[in-house]
Amino acid sequence: MSAQPLTSFDKLCIHTITHKPWSLREVIDNFARENVKGITVWRGDIEGGSPVEAGKMIRSRGLEIVSYCRGGFFPAKTALDRQSAIHDNERMIDEAAALGAPLIVLVCGAVPGLPLSESRRHIVDGIKAILPRAKDKGIKLAIEPLHPMYADDRSAINTMQQANDVAEEIGSDYVGVAIDVYHLWWDPRLEVEIKRCGRMKKIFAFHICDWKTPTEDILFDRGLMGEGCIDIRKIRGWVEDAGFKGYNEVEIFSNSRWEKDQADYLSEIKQAYLRHS
Amino acid sequence: MSAQPLTSFDKLCIHTITHKPWSLREVIDNFARENVKGITVWRGDIEGGSPVEAGKMIRSRGLEIVSYCRGGFFPAKTALDRQSAIHDNERMIDEAAALGAPLIVLVCGAVPGLPLSESRRHIVDGIKAILPRAKDKGIKLAIEPLHPMYADDRSAINTMQQANDVAEEIGSDYVGVAIDVYHLWWDPRLEVEIKRCGRMKKIFAFHICDWKTPTEDILFDRGLMGEGCIDIRKIRGWVEDAGFKGYNEVEIFSNSRWEKDQADYLSEIKQAYLRHS
Repeated sequence: MSAQPLTSFDKLCIHTITHKPWSLREVIDNFARENVKGITVWRGDIEGGSPVEAGKMIRSRGLEIVSYCRGGFFPAKTALDRQSAIHDNERMIDEAAALGAPLIVLVCGAVPGLPLSESRRHIVDGIKAILPRAKDKGIKLAIEPLHPMYADDRSAINTMQQANDVAEEIGSDYVGVAIDVYHLWWDPRLEVEIKRCGRMKKIFAFHICDWKTPTEDILFDRGLMGEGCIDIRKIRGWVEDAGFKGYNEVEIFSNSRWEKDQADYLSEIKQAYLRHS
Repeated sequence: MSAQPLTSFDKLCIHTITHKPWSLREVIDNFARENVKGITVWRGDIEGGSPVEAGKMIRSRGLEIVSYCRGGFFPAKTALDRQSAIHDNERMIDEAAALGAPLIVLVCGAVPGLPLSESRRHIVDGIKAILPRAKDKGIKLAIEPLHPMYADDRSAINTMQQANDVAEEIGSDYVGVAIDVYHLWWDPRLEVEIKRCGRMKKIFAFHICDWKTPTEDILFDRGLMGEGCIDIRKIRGWVEDAGFKGYNEVEIFSNSRWEKDQADYLSEIKQAYLRHS
């Protein structure tokens, strides 16, 4: 069943990358002024800066840090590169702890030419390898299944079923799934796998945006909610029925939106959030 | 297990659209001269012309017509439009019979904003509606599952499992599946569903090309075999192990290739066919 329409911004979170032209400080100022409650911080947006200071700045303005994006990219052709990916993810866990983010989203990785079955093994091994550090620091990890059009070089985990399988295999309270409507809306098994994920208590995040027709760019042409064909409210209903009570995170990569005035864009996001999410 | 390398062009079929800049007559002349045995004819390439004459011209040069592309596009928002799609598919069956093609490939269709579950119902209803005409004319129908990135406006059938389910539900010897590596390579269930399709005797066609990294255009940037990340030989092995003995059909939509000299391109295709298929 579709969810009830949203009537407030209490569960609205926006990813810093959605407003890529803004500095982290501009993002925080605008979110605070516009009553956006949650923020998901992309690693590049605190690059060079101190995660501790970034976390303080965010909390001082009353914002809640929802997650830290993005770890993963475990598969590689050499053992050395796989080890280096593991170290990088461990550093990211430390950064998340310093920032005060409870969760890291994992874009699990894929390498053109490496069989997907092998990449999938590297992913499981990689997550298991960083798990002790994640537990130690109290940081959860969310496997984000990516759309099959990213199976070449971004993620070998491309359906909710696969993400659930991996999370179940690892079997830790610290490992769950990030559900992004953009990646998963087409899947006839989505509803049943969201239910399964809910039963496992592994729905860790919920990301929204829309799928535009036509899609002009495979990476940077995501739509604002309502601009495309995804029935976001229906999927949000499934996610909430499965027990999820967290934020609705607006994560939009869009060349055309990034060219526009970001304050206007934030107003559009808020409108679209109420009308179409 | 991977298939044996190909050592001849006996099973090579090329889609007319692969050489879009050429007229049908140029395609036929070049295929005949270059020892390409099979041809799949795209409807647009005989537009305005007579399918009977096209068929005669093709056979007179020793080429075999493998299939006729493409029917489908059954889902629509109004009953009138659905009926019109059914009539168009019936006309296409007549054309295939006139041409002498044994098979029509179905790009089943999807409409932005129409729920996929509803589109899927329209697809089943549409195929059932045209089935009497297909039987009457002796034309088989192949459901082609399309990559999930086309679920908005091209096909609501996006995995081999769905195509098998629909073919099984319809339960006619005239309805099977067209397997295209471009659409399906990423799917962890592909091998098992190819086996299932083989058991049902429903593998009707096998299409090859490659997935490029990066993919610059969602429609027209397919790669030549060997240019991308798809293990075509492995998938061909699954298809042959499942009992398929038909052609390997090269179907490449590529803006960059269409700009090049088509005779050179045909040589490249033949080389890539032996090396990477």
